[in-house]
Amino acid sequence: MKSIGIDVGGTKIAGVLLGEDDQVLAQDKVATPAQSAQAIIEAIVAMVQGLQVGHEVAGVGVAIAGFIDAKQSTVMYAPNLNMRNVALKAILEDKLGLKVFIENDANAAGWAEYRFGAGRGTQNMLMVTVGTGVGGAIIADGQMFRGGFGVGAEIGHMNFIPEGKECGCGQKGCLEQYASGTALLNAAKDLLRSNDASAAGLRQICADPEKLTGSDVYQAIQAGDIAVLGLLKELGFTLGKAIASLTALLDPEIVVIGGGVSVLGNQLLDPIREAYLAHLPARGFRPELRIVAAELVNDAGAIGAADLARGHLGSR
Amino acid sequence: MKSIGIDVGGTKIAGVLLGEDDQVLAQDKVATPAQSAQAIIEAIVAMVQGLQVGHEVAGVGVAIAGFIDAKQSTVMYAPNLNMRNVALKAILEDKLGLKVFIENDANAAGWAEYRFGAGRGTQNMLMVTVGTGVGGAIIADGQMFRGGFGVGAEIGHMNFIPEGKECGCGQKGCLEQYASGTALLNAAKDLLRSNDASAAGLRQICADPEKLTGSDVYQAIQAGDIAVLGLLKELGFTLGKAIASLTALLDPEIVVIGGGVSVLGNQLLDPIREAYLAHLPARGFRPELRIVAAELVNDAGAIGAADLARGHLGSR
Repeated sequence: MKSIGIDVGGTKIAGVLLGEDDQVLAQDKVATPAQSAQAIIEAIVAMVQGLQVGHEVAGVGVAIAGFIDAKQSTVMYAPNLNMRNVALKAILEDKLGLKVFIENDANAAGWAEYRFGAGRGTQNMLMVTVGTGVGGAIIADGQMFRGGFGVGAEIGHMNFIPEGKECGCGQKGCLEQYASGTALLNAAKDLLRSNDASAAGLRQICADPEKLTGSDVYQAIQAGDIAVLGLLKELGFTLGKAIASLTALLDPEIVVIGGGVSVLGNQLLDPIREAYLAHLPARGFRPELRIVAAELVNDAGAIGAADLARGHLGSR
Repeated sequence: MKSIGIDVGGTKIAGVLLGEDDQVLAQDKVATPAQSAQAIIEAIVAMVQGLQVGHEVAGVGVAIAGFIDAKQSTVMYAPNLNMRNVALKAILEDKLGLKVFIENDANAAGWAEYRFGAGRGTQNMLMVTVGTGVGGAIIADGQMFRGGFGVGAEIGHMNFIPEGKECGCGQKGCLEQYASGTALLNAAKDLLRSNDASAAGLRQICADPEKLTGSDVYQAIQAGDIAVLGLLKELGFTLGKAIASLTALLDPEIVVIGGGVSVLGNQLLDPIREAYLAHLPARGFRPELRIVAAELVNDAGAIGAADLARGHLGSR
């Protein structure tokens, strides 16, 4: 049966109507009214009602950038959406008259990649999302791995450097502080500030470290700037080391690299693969996984949420 | 139905006959003939045949200290047993005329703890085995988590210190180098070598760092030696930090600490709990897990293997 998926992020809310043949039949997008949980809930309801017109829908999946409880009913903590302990499933079911399932947004995007993207045909997948932060999703034996309290797969908050850089989560040295798009931008800002001769190319694009943006960094990479490519390579090495360590624990068949930085393709993937192989425990005595780029760039979170909802309802 | 479990370690082979009421009806133990895979296979066959006398048995689970493939049929690599790519399932089924399932030994012991020990009643458990090395097992949604190639949950080979101490797996800085019983013994040897005044108590038990044993260290701990208790506390802090980082990824409901060092109980668990809470990402915004000692000390691997075998055969 058809289902609806809504992906609620800090800046935008995206929705899809997913057909029985796995095609996206309709989609919608609005800016997130982040001032209040109430306004976000109203925006979700309006989007579902709009996508639903003229269709019979099995249920709704809602992907949320935050901690969701193990019962997939309550948003425990979503700082960017001003939500804390919101019983979102019950509230939306009451307003919509449809079955609703809440899911973490990184989990939903990973699920879409597993079902329809780069992870198709595998049973054990690790998704690493490299964007503003570092997120993740784990598929184990064909099932979404959520953890005991629903808040697992937070790869970005694994410790990478003992007593390292401070992280917003309250800890120090989290992977996210070294391997995110934000970390890459900060490294480029430091390069500008260094007055090093190698910063000349980047300085031509933007001379002020305070004003440097991610797209400036992207432009320097596209122009083949040696110094900025070096920073990207470092980022890839960091991710590859982390993936090697995660492999000891999770042993996936495939690692899918997604998020904004993954559009750089092999410029990011090659150093990841190199560092992964160099740091893999017991290399040579175990099968080696594949590391590939995500295939679904747009609406992955909404598509994954829609598919998970119909899966819960046994109507996939 | 009844089933048989055999746990093949580097020093001994232990076997149990598990009854329908989960009681151990018979058990056996022999030294491991580690000189050849062939001799080990013959010892397993003899033990199964001995335990089987007079009983109808559904199948046999064999726990092996090594890498097992995802199909649970081949021992890919078990250095302490001189096995590499041994089709153990087929060989044993041929000799025994019974269904056989191969499992990693840490997984089997973790499964026993989940079914009959400290993990009873949970659905998501992490077992951390602190012995000669650091091993682990993951139960996810009530299922054994094996990974895509069957070699997951190798907690001891997660990176703990970047470019840290060399590990037998070929990498540097693995958790096992800092948090195992061997690491504790090495730290005690270093204390003896230091000629520090605080080593006086330990020196009375054994003055020669080359001859110091694990039971000497245990004796010093039981005697309340301040310096050695400090080393144990450090070990606990290390484990607690690692568990906090693992929690970001696995989010278990419970962490069960097993292995030889776990007999120290709260002397080990208290510092683990303290460091876990101090290093938990997003503390205060998520439920907190319980950290407890393993309950099944003897034959956990064999009992877990027996229960897994009957589970595979649908005769639990």
